[in-house]
Amino acid sequence: MIIEQYFEDYEIGAKRKTFGRTITEADIVVHAGHSGDFFPHHMDAEWCTDQEFGQRVAHGTMIFTIGVGLTATVINPVAFSLGYDRLRFVKPVFIGDTIHTEVEIIKAFPDEKRENFGRVIEGTTVVNQEGATVLYCEHIYLVQMKAADSS
Amino acid sequence: MIIEQYFEDYEIGAKRKTFGRTITEADIVVHAGHSGDFFPHHMDAEWCTDQEFGQRVAHGTMIFTIGVGLTATVINPVAFSLGYDRLRFVKPVFIGDTIHTEVEIIKAFPDEKRENFGRVIEGTTVVNQEGATVLYCEHIYLVQMKAADSS
Amino acid sequence: MIIEQYFEDYEIGAKRKTFGRTITEADIVVHAGHSGDFFPHHMDAEWCTDQEFGQRVAHGTMIFTIGVGLTATVINPVAFSLGYDRLRFVKPVFIGDTIHTEVEIIKAFPDEKRENFGRVIEGTTVVNQEGATVLYCEHIYLVQMKAADSS
Amino acid sequence: MIIEQYFEDYEIGAKRKTFGRTITEADIVVHAGHSGDFFPHHMDAEWCTDQEFGQRVAHGTMIFTIGVGLTATVINPVAFSLGYDRLRFVKPVFIGDTIHTEVEIIKAFPDEKRENFGRVIEGTTVVNQEGATVLYCEHIYLVQMKAADSS
Amino acid sequence: MIIEQYFEDYEIGAKRKTFGRTITEADIVVHAGHSGDFFPHHMDAEWCTDQEFGQRVAHGTMIFTIGVGLTATVINPVAFSLGYDRLRFVKPVFIGDTIHTEVEIIKAFPDEKRENFGRVIEGTTVVNQEGATVLYCEHIYLVQMKAADSS
Amino acid sequence: MIIEQYFEDYEIGAKRKTFGRTITEADIVVHAGHSGDFFPHHMDAEWCTDQEFGQRVAHGTMIFTIGVGLTATVINPVAFSLGYDRLRFVKPVFIGDTIHTEVEIIKAFPDEKRENFGRVIEGTTVVNQEGATVLYCEHIYLVQMKAADSS
Repeated sequence: MIIEQYFEDYEIGAKRKTFGRTITEADIVVHAGHSGDFFPHHMDAEWCTDQEFGQRVAHGTMIFTIGVGLTATVINPVAFSLGYDRLRFVKPVFIGDTIHTEVEIIKAFPDEKRENFGRVIEGTTVVNQEGATVLYCEHIYLVQMKAADSS
Repeated sequence: MIIEQYFEDYEIGAKRKTFGRTITEADIVVHAGHSGDFFPHHMDAEWCTDQEFGQRVAHGTMIFTIGVGLTATVINPVAFSLGYDRLRFVKPVFIGDTIHTEVEIIKAFPDEKRENFGRVIEGTTVVNQEGATVLYCEHIYLVQMKAADSS
Repeated sequence: MIIEQYFEDYEIGAKRKTFGRTITEADIVVHAGHSGDFFPHHMDAEWCTDQEFGQRVAHGTMIFTIGVGLTATVINPVAFSLGYDRLRFVKPVFIGDTIHTEVEIIKAFPDEKRENFGRVIEGTTVVNQEGATVLYCEHIYLVQMKAADSS
Repeated sequence: MIIEQYFEDYEIGAKRKTFGRTITEADIVVHAGHSGDFFPHHMDAEWCTDQEFGQRVAHGTMIFTIGVGLTATVINPVAFSLGYDRLRFVKPVFIGDTIHTEVEIIKAFPDEKRENFGRVIEGTTVVNQEGATVLYCEHIYLVQMKAADSS
Repeated sequence: MIIEQYFEDYEIGAKRKTFGRTITEADIVVHAGHSGDFFPHHMDAEWCTDQEFGQRVAHGTMIFTIGVGLTATVINPVAFSLGYDRLRFVKPVFIGDTIHTEVEIIKAFPDEKRENFGRVIEGTTVVNQEGATVLYCEHIYLVQMKAADSS
Repeated sequence: MIIEQYFEDYEIGAKRKTFGRTITEADIVVHAGHSGDFFPHHMDAEWCTDQEFGQRVAHGTMIFTIGVGLTATVINPVAFSLGYDRLRFVKPVFIGDTIHTEVEIIKAFPDEKRENFGRVIEGTTVVNQEGATVLYCEHIYLVQMKAADSS
């Protein structure tokens, strides 16, 4: 779905919540193979036995990838992703946990360098089945202003 | 390989450089299937024809995942990844581009909340075959101090 | 996204069109590995050289899977997929072709066996980058009537 | 294996039965990633808890793909797959179920439009470990007549 | 297909030839992710430019896996794979090459340790599109003798 | 990591041990899809019930691929893999087993055909979580002599 949403259309405090997704052993196998990170924290159930969590832990980059991927449902042709701030791995995610993502517009302000563009900051919280935050980050969008088109 | 490296062992300005990896169409297919992000920017060569870059672009979460994955060669059992700051998608990565990652210790300071732990910040730069930065981020590690063990 | 749509809400002739997706060599590799069908029509570029199409052809089950998958964007909790009629492989799909799917409600009638349920038939046409139909099928949904809830 | 089988060689009632295959959580992860269908019916174990089946269900397109894939062991160079009729999802398939496919030639008649060709209909039944049918469809082949070659 | 073939049934010099399979860039991506071997010889097209072959080379373990996999079409319930001798990587395989496998029974002799069992040696040659051998190995089977059943 | 190690630098008896990796159901699904070997020994949990091991067994080619892959951590630019001798599947590997690889230099001798090159034989033992050998093979390297460079 494509929905055009200009800088002026974003409302601080607007929220949305994604579908959930159960993190499987297969996802860990896929992510190790994709990232090349085969550290025993993710791959070796025996070794994990006497580590802090007692079991394999999902890669942080996977929870970020899937957590953000869950939000990718609507294309806004006048917005561009610049990156992320304050990405934190708050709690481990284990095989069998189910995560979903909650997004909230937390800031919006004119871009300093680019006239007719603003920045919109989306607080992005990945939450597990017990309601605990497992990952937090702030997605930074560069969004066109309406002014830009009418000028 | 496991190398124990305490907070005191990190040296500001220390650098390392990873192997390279060519980003393939198959990686984009894998990442779309893993993340659930099938946006036409990544998946629809026809649609891309009259977009800004004229071709399919790698997912930002993939360049982050692979760029960071390339650095995962040594385990430091007294360091823990807390997250990332200032993650920026600087330039698009296209099918056939070859990326590698350059890492530099840029900051190290005692952790405010946890006694006997410090934070080490690794500037992480993903670079393409032309030497241009495509992604930058700052990896935040919590690292045990030697003091912690001897006390 | 979840949108409740009862039998009475469907309108004959209503249409929607999905995003596109370029069919890659990687998709053929994935589909062979998933289906177990490694026939040379899909896997052996040399053998294909003197066959009818002169090149590898995508599996029919893959074009069906991806073509239908492209339409999976909205969940209707009062509708259930019963199956498909008249599935036809109209034209071959080659590596590099870009397909999208066009869906049209073509029939809606009360279900013979289940009171308070109707059948809705979605004509599903998978189309390539030249506008040619490559696959056609009729998706059969069993949909609750409003009457069912108010009774 | 390649076995030439002309229209006249098909015998109504001829049957064959494939090997079995256990449907795994990994297959669901692969199929979601391949089809782009990440609906919670397949991906979210928590959400499924209070749905009709109480657990994740395999995608219909996957059972079709694998069920048909299991039959792909012999190439008949004088037969062409036109498509399928009456594809029905009869029962859900769960993680850990084992399916196999039973095929029976149920109809064979001259093709109306193409001289020297006939249609052969293969009743295709996918069966689970309890002997219950989970999917049924009728595979339609266009098969050359011997007459065609000798003329 | 299941075909019972006892030790006495094997004939020295008997040959079979498999279907072919084109080795794709996607296969290299899959194999790197499966094996964990991301060496630049396979993954870094730039680095390969000034190496001996000037391009990425398929993993030896992949050509072995696929070459042997191509032969897995018939199950012999009275034979067991013990391993392989003389596995040699004769020539590199590049992206786009098409390989098939040729198998010949080269030796058969009674097993020294297990009465009523013999060893059958299958010379296994993986061949590319130019007819050149790329991999050779000798597959060692332990096969039941007829005597074993009748005794 | 790249470490130049000439023929003269190898020491008989030198050993190294890799990280471990838990073999998952997902790995079997990936390997079947990659190799094309869908034999019921690996894929059909029901069929396995009354076979010798009572459960699905990992493919031999997978344990070889992963076992050898675990050793791929250091590139020696003056060594080339020629192949393997005495590859034996000593014990079955089941879903959930954790394997690691132990490597020992067991032989080193001048190459008969290539002046200034020697052969180094690495005894490669794949071991499960109970310390039992599951696979053994001898990796044959062709390694440059120091003499070669100084001449």
